[in-house]
Formats: sequence, C-alpha cells, structure tokens
Amino acid sequence: MDVQFAVAKVSKYASRESGDTLEMIERPHGGISLVLADGQRSGKSAKAISNVVARKAIQLLAEGVRDGAAARAAHDYLYTYRGGKVSSTLNILSADSRSKTFVISRNNDAPVIIYTQEKGLYLLDEPSRSVGVHQVTKPVITEFPIEVGTIIVVYTDGLRHAGSLSGSHNYDPVSGLEQMIADNEVSPRVIADTLLADALALDNGRPRDDISVLVASVMPESNDGARRLDVHLPLS
Amino acid sequence: MDVQFAVAKVSKYASRESGDTLEMIERPHGGISLVLADGQRSGKSAKAISNVVARKAIQLLAEGVRDGAAARAAHDYLYTYRGGKVSSTLNILSADSRSKTFVISRNNDAPVIIYTQEKGLYLLDEPSRSVGVHQVTKPVITEFPIEVGTIIVVYTDGLRHAGSLSGSHNYDPVSGLEQMIADNEVSPRVIADTLLADALALDNGRPRDDISVLVASVMPESNDGARRLDVHLPLS
Repeated sequence: MDVQFAVAKVSKYASRESGDTLEMIERPHGGISLVLADGQRSGKSAKAISNVVARKAIQLLAEGVRDGAAARAAHDYLYTYRGGKVSSTLNILSADSRSKTFVISRNNDAPVIIYTQEKGLYLLDEPSRSVGVHQVTKPVITEFPIEVGTIIVVYTDGLRHAGSLSGSHNYDPVSGLEQMIADNEVSPRVIADTLLADALALDNGRPRDDISVLVASVMPESNDGARRLDVHLPLS
Repeated sequence: MDVQFAVAKVSKYASRESGDTLEMIERPHGGISLVLADGQRSGKSAKAISNVVARKAIQLLAEGVRDGAAARAAHDYLYTYRGGKVSSTLNILSADSRSKTFVISRNNDAPVIIYTQEKGLYLLDEPSRSVGVHQVTKPVITEFPIEVGTIIVVYTDGLRHAGSLSGSHNYDPVSGLEQMIADNEVSPRVIADTLLADALALDNGRPRDDISVLVASVMPESNDGARRLDVHLPLS
C-alpha cells in the first residue's frame, strides 16, 4: 500500500501569517504523524498559540509517546503556559506502520470526514473541545486499519465557515467530498485543492479565516517503494 | 516566489528500514527547515542514531535556535549520549522567509550541489565531518539569497556510492544535474526522482546503501499563495 497525504493551507485575506500550524514527524516505531493546530483569533498571536501546541505534540510523538498522551500533554502545556486563557484546536492524523492503522486524535469541534470502501462516507463528530481552556481536556481518539480506498479529510474551521459572511450559505466539505468520491477521485492532492478552491470561491478568493485542509488517501502499492515528500512554500 | 522542495528516499536493498532520517519543521520566524541525517552503518541501529540527531536538530530549530547552533547541539548530544562511538552525517537546508535566504548547514563529507542563474553550477565541498565522534565538531554554514532559478541538491552518500560495487564506476550526481539543467528541467520532483532512478539503475535496482535525495528549486510566484505539502509513505 502507499499512504498518501496532501495539505493545502492559506491565510486569512490580508493577513501575512496563518494562525494555523501544520507539522509532520516520523514515528520512531514506523509511520508518520501530521499535527494540525488552529490557534484562537488570527495572525501573529494565533500563530504563536498554534505553534506551541503543535510543537509540543510533535516533540512527544517523535519520542514515541502515543497520540492520546501527546494531545493531553499539549493541552496541559498550553493551559499551564497561558493560564487557561487561550484555546487552540488540535488534530493528529497518524499512519502507524507497525499496527497498520490510522490513529485520529480530535480536540476540535469541527468533524473529520472518513470514507472507506466498507462503510462509505461518515463523520467523526463526537463532541470534542479545543485544548488550553478547561482544566481537564482529552482528545477523542479513533483507530482503524489502513486499507486501500480509505480517504480521510481533516480541516480547520475556516473551511466550513467559508461563505458565512457573504450571505447565502456556508461551505459544506462533506458534500464536496461526496461529489469527488462519486467521480472516483482518489488523489489527495486533487481532493485538498478542490475543497480549498470551492471554499475560497464562496469568499470571492478573500478568505475570512485561515483555512487548512489535510487529506489522506490509501493507494495500492507504489512502483519503487520510495518515500516521497513535496513542499511548496510561497514567499512574498 | 515559490520555494519548492522534493525528497526521494529508499532503503538499502532487503533492509526493512532506512538508516537515513528526514524531518521538516516550520521556522518560528517564518520559513521551513529540512533536516537530513545518515546514521553510521545501516538498518535499525543506523536509524536509531539518525533519528536522535535529526530530532534534536528540529526540536531546537522549532524553538527559534539558529541553524549552526542547532547542528552543534545535535553533535554534542550524540557525542555525549553515545560516548563518541557512533557518527552521523547531518545536513540542514533552511528557507528563511524573514531574511529571504537559504541557509545550508553541512556536517557531511558529501558535497551539496548548487545552481544559480548568476554563478552556474558549483559545489559546497569545504572539508566537513560527521557529528558524534570528535569532541568539537562544527558545521560548515553557507547562506545566500533566495532567487528564482536557484536549485539545491543535498544527498546522503548512498547516492554517489551507487554502482561502486558493480564494477565500472560510481554514480556522479553533478553530471546528472548538469544534464537536467541543460535540458531546462527545474521541477524538484523530476530532479530528485531522476537522480535516484539513475543511481538505482547502476545498482540494478538493489541499492547497496540507503539513499536520500533532497532538492530545492525556486519558481516564480504561485497562483493562489497556498502552502502545499505532499507525502507518499509506502507500507509493506
């Protein structure tokens, strides 16, 4: 199998810096984890918050700490460091090559969208709250086997709030993904870019909030067994 | 400008695990750093070494420590932790969006290949040694402006040792890149994959060592200003 991930990430319009932070780390027992945090408010102060939360989580994941414990520690750290006054969402998406499972950790009101060949499309939407503001906050953890055809979409709430201020309606990423699955689209890059582009269109290309979309898609075996990483970093 | 990075990474033939570690981290003042470490020997023991070195470096870079200090600290840590008995190469390639410069840190006998529109093709090949075995080891640091058309190739020594045991000759990544530049190839993905494929061909598809290739290429402005990340993780 070839587990593929794609991330697309934009800042709020006219904001130099996104308040979202996305980091990736190799898991010491095999596999990788992607951590996505969305700090309260936007711009520089939000960035400082999401950066601290994501950094604490990946630092622990890199040392072999399990996902749930890393998420709790990131909460405890932010809560202590900022006196319970600022919040951040935190999602961890891990592909563990030892257990051959995905592990999804949510500290985020926004759901995670899953598609599997067996179960079809469904949401991970158990009530879940951000880290940093309540004394005890734990993540909602979901684990299931890595199987060809599975698609996972994780996003920060800028995606579903797109369009909310321009009037008519909010963007609905679930129906966006449903349409692509009906069209047999499985490329995580195409899925992430389409969800982002559709949301941006509702805001006339001027997003009202930072938007980050993370998509995983499991393909059949790769040709040469190489690991690959591609990064695009726009500089103004 | 759009700074693009591509990594391709394979394990030694019949080895489950690559002894090379590649990690990426966001720089707190803007930009990203990619860290590539190649641990002594191969397989599990090499992985444990390169993992410790890369993890220490990115942990410090994530906290805003400058590249040279992070490389020295990674050395000190490995030297202390393993009593000077094991070595690892360490390269850090950073795109700093505040200074608009690339910062390249080498603790590696293997050179780094650079192409700029002004200077053409040249090597960073000042004598440089691996971290972990000598009491005092410092990185060779090179910094220059990020400009459209610049290409940077960083690799672990498996790339240039490809072919060395099959007889005739070693792989020469410099002439490989020279050819691609003559053909106006600027895609970092194509460059990384071509260098890897050519080296693998010399070893008849059975690499004698772990091979990692990291390529950066600076393109004109991107369309939508989005940051993008793509990962392919083969699972056996």
